Amino acid sequence: MTLLEGPNLVGAARDAGCRIEAVFAREDDRTVGDEAVRVSEQVLRHLAGTVHPRGPLAVMGVPVSQPVERSCLVAFGVADPGNLGTLIRSAVAFGLDVVVTHESADPWSPKTLRAAAGGHFSTSIETEATLDDLRGRGFTIVGAVPRGGADPAVLGEIDRAAIIVGSEAHGFPLDVESDMEVTIPTAPGVESLNAAVAGSILAYVYSASRRS
Amino acid sequence: MTLLEGPNLVGAARDAGCRIEAVFAREDDRTVGDEAVRVSEQVLRHLAGTVHPRGPLAVMGVPVSQPVERSCLVAFGVADPGNLGTLIRSAVAFGLDVVVTHESADPWSPKTLRAAAGGHFSTSIETEATLDDLRGRGFTIVGAVPRGGADPAVLGEIDRAAIIVGSEAHGFPLDVESDMEVTIPTAPGVESLNAAVAGSILAYVYSASRRS
Repeated sequence: MTLLEGPNLVGAARDAGCRIEAVFAREDDRTVGDEAVRVSEQVLRHLAGTVHPRGPLAVMGVPVSQPVERSCLVAFGVADPGNLGTLIRSAVAFGLDVVVTHESADPWSPKTLRAAAGGHFSTSIETEATLDDLRGRGFTIVGAVPRGGADPAVLGEIDRAAIIVGSEAHGFPLDVESDMEVTIPTAPGVESLNAAVAGSILAYVYSASRRS
Repeated sequence: MTLLEGPNLVGAARDAGCRIEAVFAREDDRTVGDEAVRVSEQVLRHLAGTVHPRGPLAVMGVPVSQPVERSCLVAFGVADPGNLGTLIRSAVAFGLDVVVTHESADPWSPKTLRAAAGGHFSTSIETEATLDDLRGRGFTIVGAVPRGGADPAVLGEIDRAAIIVGSEAHGFPLDVESDMEVTIPTAPGVESLNAAVAGSILAYVYSASRRS
């Protein structure tokens, strides 16, 4: 189970046909109907675990892992739920699916859901795939590395790319074999980008290169 | 005054010639020298305000506003210090300066500093400029809007661009007159990107278009 907060997230989950077990809202919250359990401010705050919950809150069953079919961002050890949610939001914006693996944050935690701003409900999120699985299913494994890789524009030539975004602390793992490596060119002396930013830029470039 | 945490930030500030007033570190912290005041774990935690401070901690005078000269990202009401820090980190990576204005988060708060990963010390950060000031100094004001703007690739044709990144909640402000508007193309139905991601993608495109 997980917890959704705010009318947008709760609405998106409902529209996507997700299983909502219970909804809690303030007495005067008109964004939900009769199905909502009306609670006091204090109870809402306790349930949400935040100081100023927006409400409504919905308890939702975590959807099962959905096999990705389109090119995807692969969060590979992305530990921060905010970064993971941002990657999901960007993947959706640029028409990609998402794989979450290798000790990444929980894709369905409330923090990840908040950062993704509803993106969870417009893309496939696969949580049980290994890179070998993906390769076996025809994906080209692309590693994002801080130096020495090809210009990201080569992504446009790949039909089904699985773009690996490594952990905040360690980047792309050295012991993973990729089929291709790309590097986002940066100014001299710059070690790295924020993980969510790096993945989002590659998703943008993938989408832009396919258009042109 | 502000507070820097961790050997990388403290080192970057010192290398940049910033005024460090005091350094606090654990007894066994060898990343700093004799100038550090040695404190207990408990005192370090109290000073840092975080549960697991890395140490060392340095108290630093906030540098004065530095006029930007290169093209820049303009944080215009970016309220989240994490987003603001990420924008600063990306600006540095792509060779841009930074303007922080219009009720954005404090660029020198500890959270912003952490998210920028040392970027503050490799770029100009101007905190007292209005858009009219920038225009008067020869900058082209570019608004990032969710729809209807030109493809970001036009950024490559601008000599000195001031790229406005609007607030997380409201985006580019309607009452601001820009000289040009750009839109990052996204999938149908997608309302917006994370503010730090949008600014970072535009910084990337600016840098990539100038190279090609």
